[in-house]
Amino acid sequence: MTRKLLTLLCLTLSLSQPTLKAQEVPAEPESIISPNIHENHSVTFTFFAPQADTVKLVSDLLPPEKIMTRFGIQDGPGSVLLQKDQNGLWTYTSDPLESELYSFWYLVDGIRVPDPNSPYVFRNGSTVTNVFTIGGGQADLYEDKNIAHGTVSRVWYDSPTVGIDRRLSVYLPAGYEDSREEYPVLYLLHGAGGDEESWLAHGRAAQIMDNLIASGKSKPMIVVMPNGNVSQDGGYGYGSYGFQKPVFLPPHSMNGEFEASFIDIVNFVEDRFRIKSGKENRAIAGLSMGGFHTMHISRYYPNTFDYVGLFSAAILPREDATGKVYSDIDKNLKVQKDNGLKLYWIGIGKKDFLYEANTAYRKKLDDLNFPYEYRESGEGHIWKNWRIYLSEFAPKLF
Amino acid sequence: MTRKLLTLLCLTLSLSQPTLKAQEVPAEPESIISPNIHENHSVTFTFFAPQADTVKLVSDLLPPEKIMTRFGIQDGPGSVLLQKDQNGLWTYTSDPLESELYSFWYLVDGIRVPDPNSPYVFRNGSTVTNVFTIGGGQADLYEDKNIAHGTVSRVWYDSPTVGIDRRLSVYLPAGYEDSREEYPVLYLLHGAGGDEESWLAHGRAAQIMDNLIASGKSKPMIVVMPNGNVSQDGGYGYGSYGFQKPVFLPPHSMNGEFEASFIDIVNFVEDRFRIKSGKENRAIAGLSMGGFHTMHISRYYPNTFDYVGLFSAAILPREDATGKVYSDIDKNLKVQKDNGLKLYWIGIGKKDFLYEANTAYRKKLDDLNFPYEYRESGEGHIWKNWRIYLSEFAPKLF
Repeated sequence: MTRKLLTLLCLTLSLSQPTLKAQEVPAEPESIISPNIHENHSVTFTFFAPQADTVKLVSDLLPPEKIMTRFGIQDGPGSVLLQKDQNGLWTYTSDPLESELYSFWYLVDGIRVPDPNSPYVFRNGSTVTNVFTIGGGQADLYEDKNIAHGTVSRVWYDSPTVGIDRRLSVYLPAGYEDSREEYPVLYLLHGAGGDEESWLAHGRAAQIMDNLIASGKSKPMIVVMPNGNVSQDGGYGYGSYGFQKPVFLPPHSMNGEFEASFIDIVNFVEDRFRIKSGKENRAIAGLSMGGFHTMHISRYYPNTFDYVGLFSAAILPREDATGKVYSDIDKNLKVQKDNGLKLYWIGIGKKDFLYEANTAYRKKLDDLNFPYEYRESGEGHIWKNWRIYLSEFAPKLF
Repeated sequence: MTRKLLTLLCLTLSLSQPTLKAQEVPAEPESIISPNIHENHSVTFTFFAPQADTVKLVSDLLPPEKIMTRFGIQDGPGSVLLQKDQNGLWTYTSDPLESELYSFWYLVDGIRVPDPNSPYVFRNGSTVTNVFTIGGGQADLYEDKNIAHGTVSRVWYDSPTVGIDRRLSVYLPAGYEDSREEYPVLYLLHGAGGDEESWLAHGRAAQIMDNLIASGKSKPMIVVMPNGNVSQDGGYGYGSYGFQKPVFLPPHSMNGEFEASFIDIVNFVEDRFRIKSGKENRAIAGLSMGGFHTMHISRYYPNTFDYVGLFSAAILPREDATGKVYSDIDKNLKVQKDNGLKLYWIGIGKKDFLYEANTAYRKKLDDLNFPYEYRESGEGHIWKNWRIYLSEFAPKLF
């Protein structure tokens, strides 16, 4: 290959990607590796901003800080000021970190900025964050190892109950396409503000399942990740509303329509894929709003799922819920219990703002003699917990 | 639903997404719609940055500007200064725009920043840009319409030639799963710096195919989008190199290994999917480096593809190309020509830095009496051209 060809191809790369203006280019911008993970699992962050007055790192690797939300003061990711050198390079090196997947971004003079030197970004709802993993422990489950991989598909299904075609994500375990076997299925539901992409990004569902199945800790299973916002046909960037700002907030997602239309998803999945029949081959789990959906779906179809997982579920008193799905809750729960199921799993973080609501819900289950397994973790309403819950829940299935 | 529940769920949303610090929250941050597309197809961009000295919009909707790259001065996206109001809201309204997909970002005091109010971001290589479409013309092909949709899967295949499992993207046309029909296949290759995700993001391959097939302009076909960087098993965030900065630059992607290993992809695809056999049911096309790959693959396997598309191909004199794939080029081309094929399509923009190289290559084809179809478009080495080329090329297939 000629030098000229190489040069032109590098130029191609530069042109097909955004380029820095001349005055913004440090001496060797391509030499910046950020975040740079050291052998002792400390991490150095580097940001080139010679004209900035302050560059802060905001990340869940730092001690939590109180942040203002529209609904009060809450725990949020911590922040730290980077140090500037004479070349305009700002840096910060963390303490050694435990094995986890971490998120971060910068505040440059108060403006939120992703790391221009890291290609690793996850979208959740309307925001994009940089991510990295520290291996050697829990986060080994969150990486694409050199093992057999499942297939991840985005599929459209007809939802007669909603009246439109809708989009969902499906994980097929390694070996599915090369066999005639039938598989059990886990329905895995996202939280408010998320969509059918969420469990695949921050949730690492495909990597967790690949790793658990390859190591023999989980049975091979199909994982179906639908979109719980019935006002959307597809998540951000994949819907017929185009690239306009969509409406996705509750109550559009929590008015009973998703639960009532869930039968469309089960029918589609059992028609399209090779699914083992029977409730003993069906599991459902969800985080936050998806835990609310999971609780209601599993009781609204009370003889359908032998495995139910509520991850930091938005389970709250039902007095003002109106949809027909929300009537007769206690009666349905009793029917669900009497029908029998193999696992009703509840996970919640000690600092979760839904902790008390989950305690109250467990009290209700106790009053109904409804058996369940309870997992209390540290911290609050964060993806770290939901990834851990999935990695503990999946091995208990089927 | 109780007011409390709603509040808590909104909080869930806030917590599971990054939140603004109190001092950064404008009176009604959620009321910002940016970009805001008006009925006359002008667009208003809004950015909240009370402390900033300058906020610029950088976008391909503006007249191109010369930018400095490591390899010289080139055309890049244009830029314009936004106007600040007394509340710290910066705005700019464009002229009415033609139907297209546009990319943009901001420079806030010189630092590159995505739009915090737009969830629509595409990653290409290591960079993330906001996007939006203006409908009513060409960009109607780039949106998810309320029509039958194909399935998009990410699949791992064994590549014995490279010695690892590798990841690719596959588009299955609507109806594939519900029939026993066999389909023709288009192999669609990305450029330098891209990966198996690129044609699905900026390239809009799934939307273009959905729309062309639904309107009867293209035949239903399978589209296979492999990863052309043999030093990667999967693209950014999907490889066994984890979340470390990967090596992807040429010559790792242009040393002949990808072309030599392409047979692994064809074998896998024809085994896994219901493919019509024969060269008359195989097409291959690629952009930039992918055009280089396409030229070499179609000639290295000279009786395999009846349809070949070179989109702004990085076709350059071969004197210093070393891999065995690059020997006997003229001889192979003659064999390819003598074997016969139905379409050899070359598209290039008048301002492309590869324009002369493509002119020289066409001269070579002329000298060989190798028939081809030539399409010269405006502008340069940009996704706009590659989307247009795909939308013109696909209807000519099969």
